[in-house]
Amino acid sequence: MISPRFCLLKSLTIPTANIESTCDRMELIAGVLKIFAGGKRIVILNSETAALLGVHSSDRVKLTYQSKEVIAIADLAEDFPHDRIWFYAEIAQALGISGDEAVQVQLAPMPESLGNVRAKLRGERLRDEEMLTVVRDVVEQHLSDIEISAFLTALKIHGLSMGETEAMSRAMVETGKTISFGKGPILDKHSIGGIPGDKTSMIVVPIIAAAGYTIPKTSSRAITSPAGTADRVETLCPVTLEIGEIQSVVKKTGGCLVWGGALELAPADDLFIRVEYPLGIDPLLLPSIMSKKKAMGITHLVVDIPTGSGAKIKTATEAYTLASDFVHLGEHLGIKVHCALTFGDQPLGCGIGPALEAREALNTLMGNGPRDLREKAISLAGMLFELVGEENGRGKAEEILRSGKAEFKLREIIEAQGGNPNVKPEDIKVGPEHVEIRAKEKGRVLWIDTSAIVQVARAAGTPKESGAGIVLRSKIGEAASKDGVLFEIYAERASKLEAALELAHKLEPVVLSRKPEERMLLDQYPARVGEREKPVVLER
Amino acid sequence: MISPRFCLLKSLTIPTANIESTCDRMELIAGVLKIFAGGKRIVILNSETAALLGVHSSDRVKLTYQSKEVIAIADLAEDFPHDRIWFYAEIAQALGISGDEAVQVQLAPMPESLGNVRAKLRGERLRDEEMLTVVRDVVEQHLSDIEISAFLTALKIHGLSMGETEAMSRAMVETGKTISFGKGPILDKHSIGGIPGDKTSMIVVPIIAAAGYTIPKTSSRAITSPAGTADRVETLCPVTLEIGEIQSVVKKTGGCLVWGGALELAPADDLFIRVEYPLGIDPLLLPSIMSKKKAMGITHLVVDIPTGSGAKIKTATEAYTLASDFVHLGEHLGIKVHCALTFGDQPLGCGIGPALEAREALNTLMGNGPRDLREKAISLAGMLFELVGEENGRGKAEEILRSGKAEFKLREIIEAQGGNPNVKPEDIKVGPEHVEIRAKEKGRVLWIDTSAIVQVARAAGTPKESGAGIVLRSKIGEAASKDGVLFEIYAERASKLEAALELAHKLEPVVLSRKPEERMLLDQYPARVGEREKPVVLER
Repeated sequence: MISPRFCLLKSLTIPTANIESTCDRMELIAGVLKIFAGGKRIVILNSETAALLGVHSSDRVKLTYQSKEVIAIADLAEDFPHDRIWFYAEIAQALGISGDEAVQVQLAPMPESLGNVRAKLRGERLRDEEMLTVVRDVVEQHLSDIEISAFLTALKIHGLSMGETEAMSRAMVETGKTISFGKGPILDKHSIGGIPGDKTSMIVVPIIAAAGYTIPKTSSRAITSPAGTADRVETLCPVTLEIGEIQSVVKKTGGCLVWGGALELAPADDLFIRVEYPLGIDPLLLPSIMSKKKAMGITHLVVDIPTGSGAKIKTATEAYTLASDFVHLGEHLGIKVHCALTFGDQPLGCGIGPALEAREALNTLMGNGPRDLREKAISLAGMLFELVGEENGRGKAEEILRSGKAEFKLREIIEAQGGNPNVKPEDIKVGPEHVEIRAKEKGRVLWIDTSAIVQVARAAGTPKESGAGIVLRSKIGEAASKDGVLFEIYAERASKLEAALELAHKLEPVVLSRKPEERMLLDQYPARVGEREKPVVLER
Repeated sequence: MISPRFCLLKSLTIPTANIESTCDRMELIAGVLKIFAGGKRIVILNSETAALLGVHSSDRVKLTYQSKEVIAIADLAEDFPHDRIWFYAEIAQALGISGDEAVQVQLAPMPESLGNVRAKLRGERLRDEEMLTVVRDVVEQHLSDIEISAFLTALKIHGLSMGETEAMSRAMVETGKTISFGKGPILDKHSIGGIPGDKTSMIVVPIIAAAGYTIPKTSSRAITSPAGTADRVETLCPVTLEIGEIQSVVKKTGGCLVWGGALELAPADDLFIRVEYPLGIDPLLLPSIMSKKKAMGITHLVVDIPTGSGAKIKTATEAYTLASDFVHLGEHLGIKVHCALTFGDQPLGCGIGPALEAREALNTLMGNGPRDLREKAISLAGMLFELVGEENGRGKAEEILRSGKAEFKLREIIEAQGGNPNVKPEDIKVGPEHVEIRAKEKGRVLWIDTSAIVQVARAAGTPKESGAGIVLRSKIGEAASKDGVLFEIYAERASKLEAALELAHKLEPVVLSRKPEERMLLDQYPARVGEREKPVVLER
């Protein structure tokens, strides 16, 4: 209710007084926690001392020392000296203290971003500038874990409107670095992931660059999968390039295959992921991906959405919904997006693991790769050609691959990034530990459990141990004879090979059957003892 | 999708191997953070070291040292020594280390409670045992701030079913202490708060106890208001009693007026409030209150719900909804609950602040108090009498008050709790700083802004400075002459008096008007410069 307090100035006689600030202020002795815990702007106080200042859990305090002033989040502790205040290292630095100084402490107002977070908890839609305020304060560490978690949870439960998704994407771009590659078109291909062995980018990028287009591909390292593109390419050449070096490679060759993690594009994303991960939620999938594209100046983008039982997206309906969102968000951000729904029932190609996949990609560029990989790369590259107005994109892509121009371009890129352009597939180290898993009886491959494949490959040592992984020798529908090799496991160390072997034995990732009708009972419920949990897939 | 992996044991030939555990394990050097930060079970690792262990943000790790083993939440830092692991003090203690030891570190499974938290994020209803698992892990610090925040946010947005509310209440009781006061009935009165000056408990408890009933009243200290019952009573006698002492006081006198904060009843509540506070949400209001009643063995409860423009609950509809929830939750918990919707448009009585209110309560018991306070106390005590089956509860309460039996009982309780039973109202120290605020022109009190009253009283020094506060000299509808005193401000220190005075000048908590029709324009929007934010009220 609106109170009538402004209407009454005439009615009260109040003695005037010479007034200082009404805020309580206190002097406390500083201590510095010599840990760098992610730049958090946190100070620790005794909870009773804090109460005297009117400071409660997660309230903000203003710290003053000499002429400097900073705002920090107050973390309250019970069993803590009453006259002390401890600083996390970065905020101590910001205030110019190193310990034992007397600093002034007082309650500070709640940041505007926290007001916006609370509005989102109430289900309100945030305006563009409100979203930017929140994202900026996330990046500058002005919001606590409690507050960021509540924000993301509310986003997940309420969902984001397209306007909010655009605002979030733009805010993530604005609070990070951007890289220019000259005037467009600037092309890119992105997969939402989930399919082990998806080394398509290593073929698509050279095809596109060989046609004279600019395709500055940044990729991530694997978080929960056996290999990210950055891991694969790193077996051939350096991928951790700085912005200037990347621009130079792209200028020289038209493309690049580098690691995007240290470029500070959309730094809010990592901060959000850190909170989303333990909660198993992913409400910002779209802004997370599209913000980085925008920061790279991408104008034309093909998004690969693997769809199927082995993928993240299980059904066509889900896939079309996601694809539609990508295209619409792209429109709002000035990026022309086409999406590909691709086969997602089994891993792509045969090699799984950084070195094994790099070998397979190189072999494919040299004319000797698995057909599913070749076909997918040509389709996606073809889509990208047609997106920029070419006719018969597929045909063009096929020709570039067949003619060896794509292989030549990859070698150019490898050299520009600091690797050996004459590398042969067999030069890429795999193993040396190695074991074959054979079929006990003959049959056809009915099913390949991609989740189990991932777990076995990781137990074998991927992605850190780049020579580790799996080679599938039979894909779905293919026949296996008695004692035929179903798949091989590679590892750099014997202990990991054994671990992977035991896991393969337990999980049975390749399922064989003489006749499909023999295997009608898939599982039972309540679960049988030892049923494993499905791991979370974080790849973008 | 259910994979057919269990159907195929016969089909694979897998070489057997002598397998150790498949989990990666690592030895790191311990360091101990000598801060007690609320018992958090947290360790800090380098993020790359963690990645080698398969550990990501907020994953759990198992720490082993000699024969001991603990589980902790992993906090990952970038700029941190690769071979070190830092422990928060309590978890170091639990593992029996003090620094520089080599401890074994490995990934540990996600706790079951986190699975339940994630289910709640998806909007699922939690079963009783799932709720208990979560609450237990909150109390034992096995869940991180990120996870508790997400849980509370999801509860706030989705709401709790009555079943979940009951489960939460029971879980909060079960994870804390309980106190027995013998066989029932055990009576209690609780106010959801929001009205400054609500000292009713200090009158209701003596009335009920004087009739021979058991009424073990625990109260909180003020968090955002000028005084909680514990603060008021503390001006008369000690309130920080241990469980045994409380039982002794209640056995002797039938009642008590003590501080409940250190009794460890429903410890989950404080942990939840710590997270709710910065988010400005209160999804667990009901379980928060009712769990403590259950822990005290309460069988009959009257809940005061102040309703009106100056209260937390603004409308009758809201009040009836809340009242209904209290009664139903009570049924589920075995507590007979009646709710009172009470007048909430202005502060209760005239004194606001610990000492001023204690004086006014004592005066009322001695026959000389403000009529609204007397009336409210008699009504609530009357309701409580009728709840346990008495007839004409109101009449009974009035007689006990009028006869002096209630005053006698309060003095008994004061003595049993260690205070002076012969205390006179004027013995209770107020001020000594003091100023009167007078009306500039004559008029009637149109409006008393309770929020502004609270702010001025707090600026004056309440609740920490018990002699501070406000005395209202005119209530709504009463006439004030030119230069008549509208209210007085008391403070223990001149600086605080000045601060309170300045704030009173700015906020104008008592609004006068010659004729109501003169004050039709209440406010305007967009807001005028300097419009203040409405503070959060945390009182239960």
